[in-house]
Amino acid sequence: MGAVAGPEIERLVQLLARLPGLGPRSARRAALHLIKKREALMMPLASAMQVALDKVQVCKTCGNIDTQNPCTVCTDPKRDDAIIVVVADVADLWALERANATQGRYHVLGATLSPLDGVGPQDLTIDALVARAHDSRVHEIILALNATVDGQTTAHYITDLLQDANVKVTRLAHGVPVGGELDYLDEGTLSAAMRQRTLF
Amino acid sequence: MGAVAGPEIERLVQLLARLPGLGPRSARRAALHLIKKREALMMPLASAMQVALDKVQVCKTCGNIDTQNPCTVCTDPKRDDAIIVVVADVADLWALERANATQGRYHVLGATLSPLDGVGPQDLTIDALVARAHDSRVHEIILALNATVDGQTTAHYITDLLQDANVKVTRLAHGVPVGGELDYLDEGTLSAAMRQRTLF
Repeated sequence: MGAVAGPEIERLVQLLARLPGLGPRSARRAALHLIKKREALMMPLASAMQVALDKVQVCKTCGNIDTQNPCTVCTDPKRDDAIIVVVADVADLWALERANATQGRYHVLGATLSPLDGVGPQDLTIDALVARAHDSRVHEIILALNATVDGQTTAHYITDLLQDANVKVTRLAHGVPVGGELDYLDEGTLSAAMRQRTLF
Repeated sequence: MGAVAGPEIERLVQLLARLPGLGPRSARRAALHLIKKREALMMPLASAMQVALDKVQVCKTCGNIDTQNPCTVCTDPKRDDAIIVVVADVADLWALERANATQGRYHVLGATLSPLDGVGPQDLTIDALVARAHDSRVHEIILALNATVDGQTTAHYITDLLQDANVKVTRLAHGVPVGGELDYLDEGTLSAAMRQRTLF
């Protein structure tokens, strides 16, 4: 390849292959597509990346990624100051926003505790969360963490630290996904859905 | 989303989603990954794209994409002038090169004939191929086209046009893919593999 298409194209392929969702083969297809759609795609994408490089920052309040700092959610006066939704990652924040799931504000931990991967409390923005939880306007901390071992370990750890804060600590419900078929669900989800059943 | 992360990030997501292999959801993950790996990935990728924009050209001889024109294959003195391998797309050329499948030169058609999609002979570089085939150094034209209806239609069309040229026209063998299991192969491939069997 290097000898055929030149090192510049090979470098483009290698960098594209480091994007999540693209492997070596699809990165090659993507590079070729970019080269073919030079005006329609490669030029706008290169400049969109430059704009992002120039403007995107991490919100100093919540850890969201935005072109303003503090971010759009933190500065939105219509948001509810009483609620802080704790997420592991910005991707989770975006997912909750797409679902229009909350009017609260957010706090991005940056990761979940993972002793096996060497991720400890000092690697997460837990201190900042505890400080925010002591603000008298805050009444509820919603732990919107993955229903995995690491996610739940993190949830327990944070709950312990928030004992002294005057806040209610809640977590997302377990249950049947909308559109999900019972037949394909694991036993843990099914029994949780049964225990947490609601009036019809 | 637009309201959460800013129009600049949304634009980056939309452009990434137009790459083959990335859907709307994986484009969002890719954008986030780029933003997080600002120095390690987004900056090098933006500059690799700029380099590609500045340098990459279509080879005027064969239609390959390269940073030099004529391309590396066309200018390589070790390549065999007697053989031209005809491919539909640059991606096919790259695949053959990765496989080290030929020492010949190439000719990129740009597409295959497809009456249903409105792709006719005038949309392909067939005239240039016929001209090249009349060069007295050329002895064989290998049609390395997809084993699809469109690919084979194109192969027949080109074979007819090359009747007057003093060249042997060949095509890729049909057969069992290396590592392939007979059980999963279609009947057409199996009977072709049987007809074109070789001595062990």
